[in-house]
Amino acid sequence: MNEIGVGLLGFGTVGAGVVEGLQKNGDLLAERTGVRLALRRIADVDMVRDRGVKLEPGVLTNDAAAVINDPAVQVVVELIGGTKIAKQFILQALALGKPVVTANKALLAEHGEEIFAAAARHHTGVFYEASVAGGVPIIRALREGLVANRIARIYGILNGTCNYILTKMEREQVTFEHALKEAQAAGFAEADPGLDIDGHDTAHKAAILASLAYGVQVPMSRVYVEGIRGLAKTDIECARGLGYGIKLLAVIKHADGAIEVRVHPTLVPAGHMIASVSGVFNVVLVEGDIVGQTAYYGRGAGRLPTASAVLSDLADVARRLSAGPGRLPEPAPQPASAAVYRDLGAIMSRYYLRLSLLDKPGMLGQVMTILGQHGISIASVLQKEMHAGKHVPVIIVTDQAQEKDFEAALRILDAMDGVGGRTVRMRIEDLGTEK
Amino acid sequence: MNEIGVGLLGFGTVGAGVVEGLQKNGDLLAERTGVRLALRRIADVDMVRDRGVKLEPGVLTNDAAAVINDPAVQVVVELIGGTKIAKQFILQALALGKPVVTANKALLAEHGEEIFAAAARHHTGVFYEASVAGGVPIIRALREGLVANRIARIYGILNGTCNYILTKMEREQVTFEHALKEAQAAGFAEADPGLDIDGHDTAHKAAILASLAYGVQVPMSRVYVEGIRGLAKTDIECARGLGYGIKLLAVIKHADGAIEVRVHPTLVPAGHMIASVSGVFNVVLVEGDIVGQTAYYGRGAGRLPTASAVLSDLADVARRLSAGPGRLPEPAPQPASAAVYRDLGAIMSRYYLRLSLLDKPGMLGQVMTILGQHGISIASVLQKEMHAGKHVPVIIVTDQAQEKDFEAALRILDAMDGVGGRTVRMRIEDLGTEK
Repeated sequence: MNEIGVGLLGFGTVGAGVVEGLQKNGDLLAERTGVRLALRRIADVDMVRDRGVKLEPGVLTNDAAAVINDPAVQVVVELIGGTKIAKQFILQALALGKPVVTANKALLAEHGEEIFAAAARHHTGVFYEASVAGGVPIIRALREGLVANRIARIYGILNGTCNYILTKMEREQVTFEHALKEAQAAGFAEADPGLDIDGHDTAHKAAILASLAYGVQVPMSRVYVEGIRGLAKTDIECARGLGYGIKLLAVIKHADGAIEVRVHPTLVPAGHMIASVSGVFNVVLVEGDIVGQTAYYGRGAGRLPTASAVLSDLADVARRLSAGPGRLPEPAPQPASAAVYRDLGAIMSRYYLRLSLLDKPGMLGQVMTILGQHGISIASVLQKEMHAGKHVPVIIVTDQAQEKDFEAALRILDAMDGVGGRTVRMRIEDLGTEK
Repeated sequence: MNEIGVGLLGFGTVGAGVVEGLQKNGDLLAERTGVRLALRRIADVDMVRDRGVKLEPGVLTNDAAAVINDPAVQVVVELIGGTKIAKQFILQALALGKPVVTANKALLAEHGEEIFAAAARHHTGVFYEASVAGGVPIIRALREGLVANRIARIYGILNGTCNYILTKMEREQVTFEHALKEAQAAGFAEADPGLDIDGHDTAHKAAILASLAYGVQVPMSRVYVEGIRGLAKTDIECARGLGYGIKLLAVIKHADGAIEVRVHPTLVPAGHMIASVSGVFNVVLVEGDIVGQTAYYGRGAGRLPTASAVLSDLADVARRLSAGPGRLPEPAPQPASAAVYRDLGAIMSRYYLRLSLLDKPGMLGQVMTILGQHGISIASVLQKEMHAGKHVPVIIVTDQAQEKDFEAALRILDAMDGVGGRTVRMRIEDLGTEK
């Protein structure tokens, strides 16, 4: 049987998962693909920590170059993360014509153009199933399963930490801060949770999905990002009362020749399958012009789920390499210049608005008038408590409006006498009427 | 650009969808794959009916052999359906070394062994993404995305007609007969609905998924089938009261070296994502030993969703053919002899039981005793109405028990004085604790 030598850079959580997966199911993989994956070398700065897997002596080194340059290593797996040293190592491997498998979403989102160009130049490939939604084979679904479709929309819950926090807030009626602390205690959030809760991790993944869907390298500067930090408990409760759940959603759309990619807390219909995706699970809903809506669900992170995706890429590389030369390159995204992006102000959305409004006659009328003057129709209004002379929360749900009109109205509302405290606005996605 | 000639057998709903998809997105496909799919010939017995798509003159013929044998046709798409003439045509195409793309679940489930063997003998391939779950790329997910996983379990809602009926019964509290009539009126059920509502269509798809997951050709005789015909409205209501929805579920499991494949109405937890899959949508939940639970969702039938899957297979074939000789065969399932199947009596399940029981002291105690004597523990009992001296419905939910013990207890219960009318039993699947 053909053997393909694997070199691993980074022996952390996922790296150890890849080793465990190979040890456990290496024979099965060989049987299914006709090629054996042989783990030759692993590089990590930490040579001593116990990762719960046994290695042959001499496999682990702290010299990444030795792994990359080893002639017995035919494919390099990069699991270091970050955009500095990982990029350098990947470019070195590609320069040697060696294919690279990576889970590095930040690197692909920020430097994908350079990396895919290097792969093309050296007639090799970069495989990144593990970079989005962990073990869920969404990259393959977009590239192969839905290849006949123009992608109209993608909605994604792509960050398990955020979804865990939002699920906890909704089910246990706790505050954001409380849910974050529990997520940290449970190992589902980092000590420094910014990359997750401020939406940047989701944004990286959204950029990768959009790039694949539209065949262009979407720059991060074109991805609008808003996280869930400080989301108020009361908004989760109000949204539920209106028949919505709140999710940190990646929203990718293509219409009238323009692409929009955004990440923000979003109200989604409570009865929709997307709203039922809870805890650390991820989901990606893809709408194609032929297939309609399809969705892909599973664990978006973690040692073994991510390893499953890395191993599927390794199996793919192994099959291709063993089929002979010239079988590797996959079409890489086109340069970003080819695409047109929709400015945030030009997007259309429905909005959820929570105002703190002085309870006196005519106030609500003034709010309505201002919204109306900006062409914004109201779908529903909710003012629960009455306390004449005090500020009370008023919830307004709008019909479709343009973002810049809504924001203009909001600026006027915020400056209005009788509007106090913090005004909250969130976008609503109805996720299509296909249900 | 390379061109691959396509011959189409069967110009019905899906056939017309494939033509429409190619006309609409043929350029996109060529751009994405580097190969152009050229529709050369179509064979159908009906040469006149308008299918809503325009064809070049001379493309449509009533001579299937002329399409199969045309040297300009390099890949044959079979969309005739059924197990007779479709099989003959597929074997003819394979004998010429031409790859075949098919949506024919009945044929693959019943004669897969012969067809895959013919493909292997002639060094070509059979591609069948469209045979299960319409446009949802579940075949690719199992074959490639989850290639590193041993598949522990698969749960599938695989028949849109049944799911439409069950959704209608649940949401509108109508009877089975009423929901079936509405499904027929809406075009979601055939005039002769037996293949769908008696579970055979789901069973064919379950056999295909199990065959792929375990690398053996699962014979239909090993697939236990029970449909939803005549399902009582009251059981849907009782199940809901207990926190369950009822779905026609394909259940595929592999444990202790034995495979079980069964199709039956199943109680699933109402909060689970699976229970939220409504109407004509399909879902396949796959649990791998490395990735955990993943799921795949979308429209399971229809002109364009199925065409999307056919076109993805055509794109795959085109890429492989244009990469040169020797690139086609995919590993075919092993002969059935290699596998061990679990007898239905040996499966473990929880059960829902609805008895019509005479309301008199001691009756429920007798029922409990009989269940206890068969080693069956009770999780909950519900007896709503009280009418001394009359028969009242009693709902019992059991803990895990072996099917043969449960059936033995049921036979005794059914023969017991004071048990009247029709006793209903359904299996419960808790779908894992991963949520």
